[in-house]
Amino acid sequence: MEKKNILILGAGLSSSSLVEYLLHAAEPHGWLVTVGDLSREAAEQKVKGHAAGRAVAFDADRAELRDAAIGAADVVISMLPARMHPTVAECCVRLGKHMITASYVSDEMRALDGAARGKGLLLLNEMGVDPGIDHMSAMRVIDRIKAAGGKLSSFESSTGGLVAPEHDDNPWNYKFTWHPSNVVTAGQGVSRFLHNGRIKYIPYHKIFRRTELVEVLDVGAFEVYANRDSLKYKEIYGLDDIQTLFRGTMRRPGYSKAWDVFVQLGMTEQTYVLEDSEQMTYRDFLNSYLPYAKNVPLETKLAGYLGIDEESDEMQKIKWCGIFEAKRIGLPRATPARILQNLLEPKWQLGPQDLDMIVMQHVFKAEFDDVRRQITSSLVFKGRDTTHTAMAMTVGIPVAIAAKLLLTGRIRATGVQIPITREIYEPVLAELADLGVRFVERETVVED
Amino acid sequence: MEKKNILILGAGLSSSSLVEYLLHAAEPHGWLVTVGDLSREAAEQKVKGHAAGRAVAFDADRAELRDAAIGAADVVISMLPARMHPTVAECCVRLGKHMITASYVSDEMRALDGAARGKGLLLLNEMGVDPGIDHMSAMRVIDRIKAAGGKLSSFESSTGGLVAPEHDDNPWNYKFTWHPSNVVTAGQGVSRFLHNGRIKYIPYHKIFRRTELVEVLDVGAFEVYANRDSLKYKEIYGLDDIQTLFRGTMRRPGYSKAWDVFVQLGMTEQTYVLEDSEQMTYRDFLNSYLPYAKNVPLETKLAGYLGIDEESDEMQKIKWCGIFEAKRIGLPRATPARILQNLLEPKWQLGPQDLDMIVMQHVFKAEFDDVRRQITSSLVFKGRDTTHTAMAMTVGIPVAIAAKLLLTGRIRATGVQIPITREIYEPVLAELADLGVRFVERETVVED
Repeated sequence: MEKKNILILGAGLSSSSLVEYLLHAAEPHGWLVTVGDLSREAAEQKVKGHAAGRAVAFDADRAELRDAAIGAADVVISMLPARMHPTVAECCVRLGKHMITASYVSDEMRALDGAARGKGLLLLNEMGVDPGIDHMSAMRVIDRIKAAGGKLSSFESSTGGLVAPEHDDNPWNYKFTWHPSNVVTAGQGVSRFLHNGRIKYIPYHKIFRRTELVEVLDVGAFEVYANRDSLKYKEIYGLDDIQTLFRGTMRRPGYSKAWDVFVQLGMTEQTYVLEDSEQMTYRDFLNSYLPYAKNVPLETKLAGYLGIDEESDEMQKIKWCGIFEAKRIGLPRATPARILQNLLEPKWQLGPQDLDMIVMQHVFKAEFDDVRRQITSSLVFKGRDTTHTAMAMTVGIPVAIAAKLLLTGRIRATGVQIPITREIYEPVLAELADLGVRFVERETVVED
Repeated sequence: MEKKNILILGAGLSSSSLVEYLLHAAEPHGWLVTVGDLSREAAEQKVKGHAAGRAVAFDADRAELRDAAIGAADVVISMLPARMHPTVAECCVRLGKHMITASYVSDEMRALDGAARGKGLLLLNEMGVDPGIDHMSAMRVIDRIKAAGGKLSSFESSTGGLVAPEHDDNPWNYKFTWHPSNVVTAGQGVSRFLHNGRIKYIPYHKIFRRTELVEVLDVGAFEVYANRDSLKYKEIYGLDDIQTLFRGTMRRPGYSKAWDVFVQLGMTEQTYVLEDSEQMTYRDFLNSYLPYAKNVPLETKLAGYLGIDEESDEMQKIKWCGIFEAKRIGLPRATPARILQNLLEPKWQLGPQDLDMIVMQHVFKAEFDDVRRQITSSLVFKGRDTTHTAMAMTVGIPVAIAAKLLLTGRIRATGVQIPITREIYEPVLAELADLGVRFVERETVVED
């Protein structure tokens, strides 16, 4: 019998733990792990000469390379940018291969459901941390509540990728642990959620003002701002009678109020470029968003414009970023969001000694006969080092576990799936717990 | 010699004065005026059995009807929705006809410039009030300042379509005199202008807070909010050394602060629908944009959320609109902007006795040798009745005058044009003045 071949596409940061996990699993199972990347060298650096590993050059847009690599695989894991998944998925279905991603199901992906089912193939998506671990950990509790005859009335869930408390040494209590561009443009568009049976809408320019505080285990307080569309989880999670349904992103308290300064000014937009951005300084950039006022210092003008105190916490945070500095931006024709990202990248970079942290917390409320219970399920997971960050591990390892379960016949689902069924979440969460990605539950009776 | 034929496409409100003007001019010149509309009856109602007039059914998407009507014309005036202009323009160029519109030059229109020039045809656009009269009245002063050796340092211009003071009887001091949907979504996207040599950007959620006050002749004070892209007029008007360049929209003082309540709440957006809008009341709609607060009246909650006083002027305006009323919306799957428009339409409708008013004011600053002058050019024009509104007259009559000048050989330009050359603006403004659309100028020496 030929060796089973797992093809991992993309040798970026989030593939490190994934490749290591599968190389480790390959030996006892007699598998081959192939890493494909635009740069064959990058792929080799992940394989590190491991006997079960192999590196290849891969380009989703070069049909020959693509079909050869995918044709030789049994399951394909795509860690490529999400826009490339449809090309890879179409090829997987055509050549009869399973596929796993950590990305949201796109319309193009969803359209392949019938064809995949027809060939007995699984296209498993949203298998990272958020989306991924959030689905699995929530569905485990939801299914248990339902099985016990409970009726869910409220589900609020939030996640944050943050710096670990031991390495938290800047006034924002934040460092980039994922794509900086996503952080700068987070919250754009309208957000909606369900509260006490009513749909609530929050426009972008209010999102960082309508935060809620939560406490998580022994890591302290976080503030949470709403994620785009919480309502879609009503159908996905089967929460037909839910009255409150909210998903949010966690930051340390004070972050949102300061970030809102940039939002209010208009400096996070990405719909237009500043034609003279290359020659401008960050101070000029800031001044472009403020009204003219003769002989008023920029700091005073900003504080007056937004109605904040010049000595306030948010002003301190903003100043620390360097936005008042007369330093050249140097980026030609950049969007406001791109300029802001450029300012923040060196400031919010994880240092070589820094560890990151994933925090996730679900709060469920459910009626059981005559008693109303609140169940809180919380995860705090810290990275091991700058390669094995909490973010890279929690994105990559669930994908790797799913590939193993698939090749060992423990996942039998077909078509386009996300990990909301017991067949998937139970073994994955069990193995994640063994690796330290462990949810802690607390249950209390709620007095009305 | 065959009679010259003017084809007017579209028999909506803005065509009334236009058709009347051209029917009146047709007799002495021996012209034929053809009005084409999807509804031949609507076209007939404009022609009113006039001897020089004719009504035809016209549909830009039906090639046969379109080519027959345009083929029989010497000049085509399109008052159709702007998206239909390219189809008509392409046909005009193909069949060798001149064309006039009151709409902004689109990219598709601009692309026809070479072909039109090659055939000696004029495609004259932006020939209404704004754009139109604004260009002509501004360029007349700009050219005069330049001819006198003046150097323009500042140009600020604003226009408003409003209710005439004699009929101004609601707390907003505003009624719809043009497409309500444009009023509800006005200011969306980023606005930019030039102030003292620096480009300033204003995001949508700040546009109604950064207004300036202006006084116009004997009609009192207005507040002005910035229009989208003032910078493009630097090139269009040839203002190479300009330091301040601003274009804005006029409302009565207090309007913007109250309108900003809707903007801040998020109720003017048009990027998504409220799925349950049909069953909701306006009060529910408002509550959808406010945080949950137990036992707090909606009025108090709104005031607290936006930091405004419950007895404030803006709260009075908002209440007057009926947004607190438990009245069914009745529109299925409507956007917030559409719901708001539905609420406002009956409230802000021009009554059968109401007259509207166009207000336009340009303020120029220029250096002449050792003296710095400020020139203010102001227009106040009131409608005659609900058919001959100031808006319909100032949009339609310049188009009509241009058609006359073209057929009598006084405009000889070809290609895609807007009315910024003396050949066009001088005779048009002269005739507009005879009809009462008259700019009043004031010139003062500025002391520094």
